[in-house]
This record gives sequence, structure tokens and C-alpha cells, in this order.
Amino acid sequence: MPMGGSALDLVGVPLPDETLSAAKQSDAVLLGAIGGYKWDNNLKHLKPETGLLQLREGLKVFANLRPATVLPQLVDSSTLKKEVAEGVDLMVVRELTGGIYFGKPRGFGTNENGDEIGFNTEVYAAYEVDRIARIAFETARKRSGKLCSVDKANVLEASMFWRKRVIEIASEYPDVELSHMYVDNAAMQLVRNPKQFDTIVTNNIFGDILSDEASMITGSIGMLPSASLGESGPGLFEPIHGSAPDIAGQDKANPLATILSAAMLLKYGLGEENAAKRIENAVLHTLNKGFRTGDIYSAGNKLVGCKEIGEEVLKSVETPV
Amino acid sequence: MPMGGSALDLVGVPLPDETLSAAKQSDAVLLGAIGGYKWDNNLKHLKPETGLLQLREGLKVFANLRPATVLPQLVDSSTLKKEVAEGVDLMVVRELTGGIYFGKPRGFGTNENGDEIGFNTEVYAAYEVDRIARIAFETARKRSGKLCSVDKANVLEASMFWRKRVIEIASEYPDVELSHMYVDNAAMQLVRNPKQFDTIVTNNIFGDILSDEASMITGSIGMLPSASLGESGPGLFEPIHGSAPDIAGQDKANPLATILSAAMLLKYGLGEENAAKRIENAVLHTLNKGFRTGDIYSAGNKLVGCKEIGEEVLKSVETPV
Ligand SMILES: CC(C)[C@H](C(=O)O)[C@@H](O)C(=O)O
Ligand SMILES: CC(C)[C@H](C(=O)O)[C@@H](O)C(=O)O
Repeated sequence: MPMGGSALDLVGVPLPDETLSAAKQSDAVLLGAIGGYKWDNNLKHLKPETGLLQLREGLKVFANLRPATVLPQLVDSSTLKKEVAEGVDLMVVRELTGGIYFGKPRGFGTNENGDEIGFNTEVYAAYEVDRIARIAFETARKRSGKLCSVDKANVLEASMFWRKRVIEIASEYPDVELSHMYVDNAAMQLVRNPKQFDTIVTNNIFGDILSDEASMITGSIGMLPSASLGESGPGLFEPIHGSAPDIAGQDKANPLATILSAAMLLKYGLGEENAAKRIENAVLHTLNKGFRTGDIYSAGNKLVGCKEIGEEVLKSVETPV
Repeated sequence: MPMGGSALDLVGVPLPDETLSAAKQSDAVLLGAIGGYKWDNNLKHLKPETGLLQLREGLKVFANLRPATVLPQLVDSSTLKKEVAEGVDLMVVRELTGGIYFGKPRGFGTNENGDEIGFNTEVYAAYEVDRIARIAFETARKRSGKLCSVDKANVLEASMFWRKRVIEIASEYPDVELSHMYVDNAAMQLVRNPKQFDTIVTNNIFGDILSDEASMITGSIGMLPSASLGESGPGLFEPIHGSAPDIAGQDKANPLATILSAAMLLKYGLGEENAAKRIENAVLHTLNKGFRTGDIYSAGNKLVGCKEIGEEVLKSVETPV
């Protein structure tokens, strides 16, 4: 179903009704990266990004799981020193349907002095923090049992409230070790020593920033999938990266994040763990054979395009080793 | 004059009136790092951070200049690969007295469903964006002539407004090359290739996050000073780093960021360029002699404490080479 730029070109809106209802009726939704120069200066309701936010809201997928893992095969493509990057394996749990992305009031106007203004509202309700905190504690429990909640509680009331609720929910998970970190410090610590993190939970805008930073630390943002889940209903699965309009149509893009998003779809969306593993193994096998797109290329490997690396993965899926 | 934790302990408020009026009557203000575990759980109006925000607001220092420079002597202390870190020399111009830090309404309450909420307002008026944009264009003009404005204009009205005003002001600076970047991408690009940046201008909260990230990329956050300037009146000069309560009283802290803040005070606050240079040279000389505190230590150098490195700088100031 079309959405984003393609839907704008086809029918003039970034999320057609038919697309949203088809998505709602599905068992799971796989989404390609969206956005492009062509629509960058559109009015807000005609931006591809607005379609994505409408889809997240429409599917009520409030929990965005963004793994950032450094694969041994790709440790050299990180800009971080090998000893800092190697072994990084963290998960950002980002709140996805609340906060400043959706808060009201928002818009343009004038203030009491008659100055033009632009404004947004960062707001969290107790139930919104509670449910994302629970997902984060569950996630941390299945991983190393360490959860770091990131906020700006030394300045923002919305963050003080966030922290208070997270501490409240923590009493349900006595086996998980909870810590708190200010967002500015977290942005530093991800560069200084990313291995200190296991599971991070944070709000929508901080999660947007920190998950992109974390993924770049792995050196392979073109490799990273994500899952967005709700209370019930279909999940939404998409690569972390954007649409890379600068290389569109050049057969250079790395398709592995999208392919791995399909694996996450099978695992988290459909409960098909074996099928998910088969795709993940096919990707690893393709890397082990030395195939690399430009973004993850390092000396000694085979530089290939989007199509060719996709074909290689397909071969390995069809004939698992 | 006391402020922050010390003022709380002495007189029970984080910014006593006497401190603010003494600051206002001064030619420039040098500030130590603030905050500590002891006051972390204080109510908002009794937090050290609140005193800092009141001081910034009281002095109307809306422009925060945060350089992030990789010194050749310290390139090894970055966690980034040498070829990525070396030569990084960027300046973050952060808006400091507006946005979500000060926007109203803010606080706690209940929403229309009776749920408890915490909320803040991100808001910018035209004059606020215009004046920080002008400082940023002036700064970029004195540096390489490249300015990157960072926002989240694909989602937030406050950012769309910000971008519109920055573009408007750009017409006054035809010699400066202006670009725009989304904040999530900026957080990635700082890790991927920090050398692409010269001057960055952004709002209060994004500037908080990105300047900390940028400073950690240099590997020596303990080295970085900052200047906060207003239209007129005294500027505020402080290290970028926090108070590092984990090593308080152990003679381990790196005093060089505070010392270099004094140099910025001389240069930007008092117009005493020669005196500023003398301090900067003394710091470089101390590094060249191999003195290092723990945070910037690398093999082959002399590990010393806060006191000793301070004494060394003092010696070099007194007898310039
Ligand atoms: C495209 C944009 C609206 C989106 C976001 O900000 O959430 C993207 O950056 C992401 O992280 O998925
Ligand atoms: C201490 C805190 C209030 C402050 C801020 O958020 O501005 C600090 O992080 C800084 O960047 O100077």
C-alpha cells in the first residue's frame, strides 16, 4: 500500500485511508524508509513524515524497539575505536506515540507582546509512561537485567513526572536494576563507553536522537531494524535509517536493515522465531562471504550493490547452510 | 558569591538575590560547575540547576558558545578513531534562555480523562530566533563561513518556525553558507564525521544534547570552556562539564576547562585578548610538558592531580615561554 512520498504523488496525501485500514487489518506491517528532497518543503500535513506519524498513531504502536548491535564482521566500519565499539549490544526502547511529537497545543501564533511564535507541547500521562516502562522492564529482564531511563528531570517537569512513574513501575520488577541518566550525559556516554548500556528507555524525542546516535556508533546504520509494538493489533517494522535520497536510484543502498526488519516482523509480529532466525542467518552468512554495500565496506571485502547483496541473502534463505 | 549547592547549604536557595545582583554589577561572571548527589532529589525550586537557569535568565545571556576542539596533544583520548577525531574544530551556538527550558505553561496536572500528567512548552518567538541566528552567522563568518542550523522541522512547529526565521536572517549574511539538518541526523553525523561541521546553531535542548556529545567526541570534556553572552551586560563563563560528584574531594578533577573559561572571559567578556592568549598558551605548554589528569591521560605522560596541574599552569602564566 502506498504511503509517504509515493502516496503524495499518487493521491495527494501522505497516508491514504485505504493504507491505514489495510494496515490495521493485517497481521503485521513492513514499512520502507520514507521521505525525500521532493517533499521537504511541503506544508506539514503534506509531508511524508506526517504520514508516518499518522500510521504510528493509527496503529497505536507506542513501543519502539531499536537494537544497536556491533557485529564482529562489521566492527571496523564504526568510527569508534575497535576496543570501544566491539561487543556493543544495546536496545533503545523509545516511546513512540506521545510526548512532543503529538502533544497539544501546538502550532503558530503570537505571544502577549504580539511577537510571532511557533510552539509545541511535551506532555506525558501516567498510563503512557507506565506502559512503555513495563515494556522496557520486560525487555531488560530478557536481556542483561539492566535498565537505564533517560530524561532531563533536572529541568523539565515532563521528565520529573516520567522519572517518578518509572520508579513506581520499578517495584513490579525487583529483579531488574534501574538507573537514571540525564539526556545530555547519555549522549556523551554513548560515545565514551557504549558498552555500559544494555536497555535504555526514553521519551519520543530523546529516543529519536539517542537511537540514531547509538546506531551510528555501530558503524552500520544500514544494518539496523526496528519494531514498533502496541497493546494488541499489528506491529510496524521498519529500518532505523531514512530513505537516503542522495543515493536514490543508484543501486547503492544497503537493504539489510529492511531485510532484518522482516526478521523482526516474523519474530515479534507473528511469533515465527524459526523463520526469523533463517533470515538473520542468511544475512550473517552473506556478510561472512564478504559481500558489502558501500556504507559497510572495508578493505578485503567485495563491494556490491543493493540488488546483488539482496540476491545473495535470498540464495542463503533458500538454501540454509 | 555562592550559588547552586553551596547556596542551598548556606542560605536555602540556589540563587540568592545578593549573588544575582553582584553578578549583574560585575564586568563578567566566572562560574564553577554545579550540582551533586546531595541535592538530586530536591524539589525543583531547590535544585542547584534551577539556580543556574535563574542566573542565565537573570543575566539575559541568550547565546551560549561551546567550542569542541581536538587538540593534537589529546587526540588519543578521543574514543573516535584518530583519522575521524583529528582536526575537529567546531562551535555549537546554543540558544540559552528560551525554548522548553523556560516555556510556559509547564508543570503537573490532569488531562481531560483525569490522568495525571507532566508537561512543558517548547516555544520560540521571532526575536529570540533572530538574535541567536545573528550571533551564529557572525560566529560562522569569523570561522570558516559555514553554518549548520539543527532542528526537527519535519515534526515540530517550533522547529519549522525556527527554520523559517533562520532562513530570513540568512539574507543579511550572503557570505555565510547556511545548511539545515534534523537533530537525529546531527547526532549521527557528529559520530560519523564530525569534521563536516564548523558552526552549529540550535535551540536550548538540542544544544544541550549535541554540545555534550560534541565535547565527548573530542575525548576531553574536562578541557572545554564555554561563554554565554547577552545583548549587553556581563557574560557568564563556565566549563561545559558538570561537577563530577563521583570524584569530589579526591584531587582528580581536571581544572583546565575552568581555567580556559577564564581565558574566554578575558577574551569575550573583557576584550583582553592578550591576557586570554597567555592563559591558553600556559595550558598548551602544560600539556606539551606531558602533564595529564586521569580523564585525559594516555601512556607516556605524567598522571597528576587537580592541584598539581593547576600549579603547572600557574607557573607557565607567571613565566610565559
Ligand atoms: C521521519 C521522522 C518523522 C522519524 C521520527 O522522528 O520519528 C524518524 O526520524 C524516525 O526516527 O523514525
Ligand atoms: C545543569 C543543567 C541545567 C545544564 C543545562 O541543561 O543547560 C547543563 O546540562 C548545561 O548544559 O549547562
